[in-house]
Amino acid sequence: MDYPRLGFVPTMGAFHEGHLSLMKKAKAECGFCAVSLFVNPLQFAPTEDLAKYPRQHEQDFEMARSVGVDLMFVPDHAELTQNIQTNVIVSGVSDLYEGQRRPGHFEGVATIVAKLFGIVQPDIALFGLKDLQQCAVIRQMVADLNMPLRLIFEETVREESGLAMSSRNQYFTPEQKSEAAELFRSLTKAARTLSTLNPGSNDAVRITLDETTDSLRSKGFGVEYLDAVDPKTMHPATHIEQDSRLVVAAKFRTVRLIDNIPVFDKP
Amino acid sequence: MDYPRLGFVPTMGAFHEGHLSLMKKAKAECGFCAVSLFVNPLQFAPTEDLAKYPRQHEQDFEMARSVGVDLMFVPDHAELTQNIQTNVIVSGVSDLYEGQRRPGHFEGVATIVAKLFGIVQPDIALFGLKDLQQCAVIRQMVADLNMPLRLIFEETVREESGLAMSSRNQYFTPEQKSEAAELFRSLTKAARTLSTLNPGSNDAVRITLDETTDSLRSKGFGVEYLDAVDPKTMHPATHIEQDSRLVVAAKFRTVRLIDNIPVFDKP
Repeated sequence: MDYPRLGFVPTMGAFHEGHLSLMKKAKAECGFCAVSLFVNPLQFAPTEDLAKYPRQHEQDFEMARSVGVDLMFVPDHAELTQNIQTNVIVSGVSDLYEGQRRPGHFEGVATIVAKLFGIVQPDIALFGLKDLQQCAVIRQMVADLNMPLRLIFEETVREESGLAMSSRNQYFTPEQKSEAAELFRSLTKAARTLSTLNPGSNDAVRITLDETTDSLRSKGFGVEYLDAVDPKTMHPATHIEQDSRLVVAAKFRTVRLIDNIPVFDKP
Repeated sequence: MDYPRLGFVPTMGAFHEGHLSLMKKAKAECGFCAVSLFVNPLQFAPTEDLAKYPRQHEQDFEMARSVGVDLMFVPDHAELTQNIQTNVIVSGVSDLYEGQRRPGHFEGVATIVAKLFGIVQPDIALFGLKDLQQCAVIRQMVADLNMPLRLIFEETVREESGLAMSSRNQYFTPEQKSEAAELFRSLTKAARTLSTLNPGSNDAVRITLDETTDSLRSKGFGVEYLDAVDPKTMHPATHIEQDSRLVVAAKFRTVRLIDNIPVFDKP
């Protein structure tokens, strides 16, 4: 590939430090940073929060400008989705976890991201690891369809409390936000335990995951799943490996949270 | 788009004049002509002729060279299809006709063509109108996924007899080939009748199509479908329009033939 000139960050807006870190990385890697802002209707189920998903374009533009973004692409819904007959379906990697609980979600993500890549033609595209399975789906799509670009995935940016930055945190009161940070603390504790286990001891892994789930439930988290996964295949890790990650989805109050962390600290 | 530099003709090999006309057109439009030769397993059903599909690489290379092709890309099967988890599905345009009779066919076509576009990154890609529905599927995919290239579709090249050139004609004896040309003669006659009808008269269209079907059946053609279609949507033409085409699929002896022609002569 040529020297990377165009870095691209696809977003749904409602920017926080996580988005800004991707934009800064794009500027560091490339001469030009383009950001798309598109609340993708295809990736929301009818029961989900498409209508109330936060929209704050002026503030987003200001934040993007402050980190040197060169171009904001804000297509309207009809422009990208009207009369579309094509779907990009990535199986395997999207079978479990979010894919299982949000039917059609990753199909919507993959299709719109493929469109955005076609329009923007970036040399590099950047995504946040907060949406770990989304990263895996896009990695698989790009590899499978031989899309001519490089992917960069960046670690999740967190609040002081450890709570993963998310546009949906806006749905919380400050107090709820601080309570929600228990999710990260529990993940971190479980990861520490898992990282000390004998790699072959699958029962011990299961016990740690179950105990963490029970503990979270007792603290008001409606845990949907908590598992150790291979982040490339997004299937359960048969053994804990150097790149294994803990993934969790849990409802806290009215908000559905997802998060994930590496089992082992990065060297 | 920049001045087109790279013209691309995706093929399954077994070249005839139809392929060569696409390559010549690519050379006329672009400085460089790349041709892929890949007998795509994804577009054959288990019951179809994948194994016996004609393979004659040396002769193909010779023919391509003779019309100035600059590059032949001959990936092996594993290289393009192993471990692939992504499918490109184009609905609507692929619902009827070939799509209905060959489940998974257009999914296989679209997925591999998307891959080839990703690998080759052409400015222009060229396809023959003999596979009319394939052209429609690819047109829809390229539009829907905003693929950065231009498509050119070229009219079918025919034998002296009118029989559409096809790699599968190799399955015929010379005598059968001459008999098979009746398909084109019948299409032409039906088109002439349709082109003289009052556009509103749908019953008359239906009668002409039915008569043509009956006549072909009496001559040994196992007609699967014969219809007047909108070539963009690949749904039945509700009225005969300037761009309507007649499409047919029919088994003759052991060979399944498809063909199509415009209802009106081009002005």
